[in-house]
Amino acid sequence: MRIGIVGLGRMGANMAARLLDAGHEIVAWNRSPAPVEALAKQGAIGARTIEDLVAKLHPPRAIWLMLPAGVVDEMIATLRRLLARDDVIVDGGNSHYREDLRRASALAEDGIHFVDVGTSGGVWGRHRGYCQMIGGEREIVQRLDPIFAALAPPIDAAARTPGRAGTPSPAEHGYLHCGPHGAGHFVKMVHNGIEYGLMGAYAEGMNILRHANVGNAPRSVDAETTPLESPELYRYDFDLPAIAEVWRRGSVVASWLLDLVASALVRDPDLADFHGRVSDSGEGRWTLKAAIDESVPAPILSTALGERFASRGEAEFANRLLSAMRFEFGGHQEKQP
Amino acid sequence: MRIGIVGLGRMGANMAARLLDAGHEIVAWNRSPAPVEALAKQGAIGARTIEDLVAKLHPPRAIWLMLPAGVVDEMIATLRRLLARDDVIVDGGNSHYREDLRRASALAEDGIHFVDVGTSGGVWGRHRGYCQMIGGEREIVQRLDPIFAALAPPIDAAARTPGRAGTPSPAEHGYLHCGPHGAGHFVKMVHNGIEYGLMGAYAEGMNILRHANVGNAPRSVDAETTPLESPELYRYDFDLPAIAEVWRRGSVVASWLLDLVASALVRDPDLADFHGRVSDSGEGRWTLKAAIDESVPAPILSTALGERFASRGEAEFANRLLSAMRFEFGGHQEKQP
Amino acid sequence: MRIGIVGLGRMGANMAARLLDAGHEIVAWNRSPAPVEALAKQGAIGARTIEDLVAKLHPPRAIWLMLPAGVVDEMIATLRRLLARDDVIVDGGNSHYREDLRRASALAEDGIHFVDVGTSGGVWGRHRGYCQMIGGEREIVQRLDPIFAALAPPIDAAARTPGRAGTPSPAEHGYLHCGPHGAGHFVKMVHNGIEYGLMGAYAEGMNILRHANVGNAPRSVDAETTPLESPELYRYDFDLPAIAEVWRRGSVVASWLLDLVASALVRDPDLADFHGRVSDSGEGRWTLKAAIDESVPAPILSTALGERFASRGEAEFANRLLSAMRFEFGGHQEKQP
Amino acid sequence: MRIGIVGLGRMGANMAARLLDAGHEIVAWNRSPAPVEALAKQGAIGARTIEDLVAKLHPPRAIWLMLPAGVVDEMIATLRRLLARDDVIVDGGNSHYREDLRRASALAEDGIHFVDVGTSGGVWGRHRGYCQMIGGEREIVQRLDPIFAALAPPIDAAARTPGRAGTPSPAEHGYLHCGPHGAGHFVKMVHNGIEYGLMGAYAEGMNILRHANVGNAPRSVDAETTPLESPELYRYDFDLPAIAEVWRRGSVVASWLLDLVASALVRDPDLADFHGRVSDSGEGRWTLKAAIDESVPAPILSTALGERFASRGEAEFANRLLSAMRFEFGGHQEKQP
Repeated sequence: MRIGIVGLGRMGANMAARLLDAGHEIVAWNRSPAPVEALAKQGAIGARTIEDLVAKLHPPRAIWLMLPAGVVDEMIATLRRLLARDDVIVDGGNSHYREDLRRASALAEDGIHFVDVGTSGGVWGRHRGYCQMIGGEREIVQRLDPIFAALAPPIDAAARTPGRAGTPSPAEHGYLHCGPHGAGHFVKMVHNGIEYGLMGAYAEGMNILRHANVGNAPRSVDAETTPLESPELYRYDFDLPAIAEVWRRGSVVASWLLDLVASALVRDPDLADFHGRVSDSGEGRWTLKAAIDESVPAPILSTALGERFASRGEAEFANRLLSAMRFEFGGHQEKQP
Repeated sequence: MRIGIVGLGRMGANMAARLLDAGHEIVAWNRSPAPVEALAKQGAIGARTIEDLVAKLHPPRAIWLMLPAGVVDEMIATLRRLLARDDVIVDGGNSHYREDLRRASALAEDGIHFVDVGTSGGVWGRHRGYCQMIGGEREIVQRLDPIFAALAPPIDAAARTPGRAGTPSPAEHGYLHCGPHGAGHFVKMVHNGIEYGLMGAYAEGMNILRHANVGNAPRSVDAETTPLESPELYRYDFDLPAIAEVWRRGSVVASWLLDLVASALVRDPDLADFHGRVSDSGEGRWTLKAAIDESVPAPILSTALGERFASRGEAEFANRLLSAMRFEFGGHQEKQP
Repeated sequence: MRIGIVGLGRMGANMAARLLDAGHEIVAWNRSPAPVEALAKQGAIGARTIEDLVAKLHPPRAIWLMLPAGVVDEMIATLRRLLARDDVIVDGGNSHYREDLRRASALAEDGIHFVDVGTSGGVWGRHRGYCQMIGGEREIVQRLDPIFAALAPPIDAAARTPGRAGTPSPAEHGYLHCGPHGAGHFVKMVHNGIEYGLMGAYAEGMNILRHANVGNAPRSVDAETTPLESPELYRYDFDLPAIAEVWRRGSVVASWLLDLVASALVRDPDLADFHGRVSDSGEGRWTLKAAIDESVPAPILSTALGERFASRGEAEFANRLLSAMRFEFGGHQEKQP
Repeated sequence: MRIGIVGLGRMGANMAARLLDAGHEIVAWNRSPAPVEALAKQGAIGARTIEDLVAKLHPPRAIWLMLPAGVVDEMIATLRRLLARDDVIVDGGNSHYREDLRRASALAEDGIHFVDVGTSGGVWGRHRGYCQMIGGEREIVQRLDPIFAALAPPIDAAARTPGRAGTPSPAEHGYLHCGPHGAGHFVKMVHNGIEYGLMGAYAEGMNILRHANVGNAPRSVDAETTPLESPELYRYDFDLPAIAEVWRRGSVVASWLLDLVASALVRDPDLADFHGRVSDSGEGRWTLKAAIDESVPAPILSTALGERFASRGEAEFANRLLSAMRFEFGGHQEKQP
């Protein structure tokens, strides 16, 4: 089918390319023209303006937005003026699901449909396929099925779950209509919250392995340094790339993220290109706020988010205050690095 | 090669069977005779006593222990009397690596070698193969290579890590000589610590999804219940089995543990067979103690362990004290369930 | 000075009484008449209706609201119709500071001033005095100074901080103009967030002391129970009331909350009247959301909130899923209580 | 009574001086002679050697050790040769309670008694008195009562707990016989664990207040920075010294640690003398290990310890790995400071 794609950043361009491969017709527009031209060379129909893009689609139109969260509202306002009853806008970016509810409700006034799609897969999705979590009206989601199917991974991307039989369910194809408006981005939000927790678990474990040789290091002997009770227990120099590798086969902790850990460590076991200032992209925060609203304890996900904040130096004043208290009650001088 | 297996519980029996499949000769003994007989039917050489098992092996002997941690010392003491210089004892169970150091040192006095092997794979290892993390002397580990290779998963159990080339490294075969005595169980210990964190991340995330419909529930209005600010944001009834399923394909959180989540949820989305009293098997505790000794922060792994303790009611007195404090300062009556 | 008090619940009635003691004139109204009559006996001027209350005040009027968060908007709407330019509404309850900003802005359209006051002190404030954190315009806050001063604790409620000299600052009197609209409730919000952390620290520590005798208890020996490595280290039967008491004198952990812990434990060392379902009142949640917005790590405060959620059974599904995963990979049967 | 003091560091010298003030006879020895001479000027009997100290005491002797944990064993070995049946050694330092059990048992072979005393109060104890948590045999602890009483704070250091009546219990005097050998250091250990949690709660809360003006700061707009949703909610420039001060009077979070926070902040609201590398002294670690052994969840105390480790850069490799994973799956470049 023919679909418009607005926003040809890394994710948008890759998704358009995957759709082209599957035989779909892509009308593409981007704020800057270069990515449009690049995609046109792969077979897409380039649009010079957003009006041009709309004009090149046939009603009922479908337009997939792949934009930074901050400019989605503006684009929807523009499209609202250009589109007609029964057209569909898909937000495939990382919007908060609360925005989906608001936008769907506003667009419905004009009879325009809205679909929210959380997509996971990163830069690998181009070839592996994208996991898609979808929210919106059932018939509209159904109308876009060929698009979702083309973007999704093949069904054999994972072995069938024991207990499932018969015709594969939609989820087994790598995309799922999760519920009404916002449901797609809600599930994607929690997906990312979980992702933070998983990443943190690997990172902490690998850090424990990396420091398993502290018993070999000379140790300061002063009032501000806790002695190591049993140095003989900490004399291992572990080969982290090899450990990540061995865990990929047959262990309980095998995962796609572990594959990436193995990949990063084989490139450089010391990860010297990184400083350890870890960004967070918003979904982790939203997940925690949702957990708070629901009164659901999520200490692991919360801790994982806090570790990222702290990695960027945001705990510094708190830590200075801790040292200041120690000075106040015990006269402890803070130890210099 | 011929090897003795002592302890035919679920893990031991499965490992012996996998070794038989690979053409190895197994001399097997177990405290109770039934598992020995069962294994003999699959081709193993049954031993009536531990002395009989030793007698049926050829020097230099190799004996693999697959025993509960509490009886390992007793068995080693027995074997020490029966074995000769250059024989090998392998501990494939879940011992603390500190015990490995002690045992290896004691056995070395008699010229007996010791190898510690952490194995991961659970009940699935019989057919998927076991991930093995190995500690001990290089030549002795080398001597046992055919055994490790037979127990390990096939090399294509995972796609090759980008950046690796040439002859596959040992780790890519699913088993790894991690270092000297204790190194195998150390790495296995941290593996389990990570496992707790991963499991907790999925559990918390799924719990947030399950409660995404709190906006539909009637809510108590009283001084002890925080109002839900935006009930309209929490009106999703998610299909958890389908969500676990869709994440298995193309998403960042795909993993073997997620496969198991999907499997458990497809059997019963409410998990009504479980009460939520979660056991822990020791390695998580040891991991945290190691992190403490190393001064390495591991708040996610620590939180995951604490969640298990709390799931078994161990926070109850702490919680009663919290309610008691609230009563003291604010006259708050604890709300009844 | 004369001031109106609206809302004579536990907090409102106590505050009114403390103001009467200090010689202020109180015009009081409450939805149900009994508390009004009770306060009138202590010298207050009772109001039959909210209109009556307004009529009995002299311009520029000051009305202090002490209402549940859910009814504040309605009362402000009513008062807005009754009040005149330069009158002041004080919200002394537990509103979110975001509401203060909204309300102050709306009232300003009519020239009505708004002041937000976070108050701490609980049922003890009647006699100890109330710590007050105040937000609003400087001159208006100044106008109400006699009220704040009367509600506050005496200056000698705490020894002077070393380094402070000269005329005591306002904060040393137990009330503080923290900043513009919302500042009072913001500071009170964080105060409560800290309170959760402090309470949790005592509760966890006391729980560790209470279980210091686990080495004396018979212990299940089964695959699902981790053995206690050194039972001889855990044979202490501690007297918790006495420990709380001794810490109150000279120790680093002395605090008002510890005073309450001591008080609760002396009444019943087993706290048998409580079940451990701990309420949370909203401010802890708001604190965490603010920390998330600010990217400030607050893992202790976050954990303290999560412990309360979990105490109310909200982790149950997560825990069931953990047991289900253990069953899937290892065949572990969940242990019954 | 006459007592020997071994170890005149900051704590030992202050305690000796407090005992002198109370009229006790102090025989003092220290590795370096200067502190002995200083104390002799205050009325103590100086000892030139440890033998000299023993000689100047009358049987049954009592010797109070105030030494770094690392040299206690050596001193006990020395004293064991010099002392006689029924003499008492007191360890008032920060030993692990497990060492108490071992030492008491060894000394008992020679009929020498052992008492462990956890002391809290820091540099303030000289004038405020020391909170003392005591372990050992009842009669021996009783024998030393005059010493404990002199070191303790006065009974009116805290208001009497409601519900207590009659003759004050020992705990109300600021010292407590907590149980058999090790009980004193066990209770002191948990005391310090709680202390970490309390300190962390204040530090996190103050950090949230300090960043309450993030809405005023210019914010990077790039893919690696999460936008601040509502900058208008974060425009407060709080006066932290004043806030700490106001909380000291009448609020729920008033405590001695808060007094110290107020003191540190009044000296320098920016705490510019500190870098935020927070030491830990061992007891927090031991508390967590005890909680793990007891299966008691202590996520707040654990998190507080982890925050200190992280403050010293120990999370760096973990954080580098997080950034590396983000690069692997999403091509995210780590943002530079």
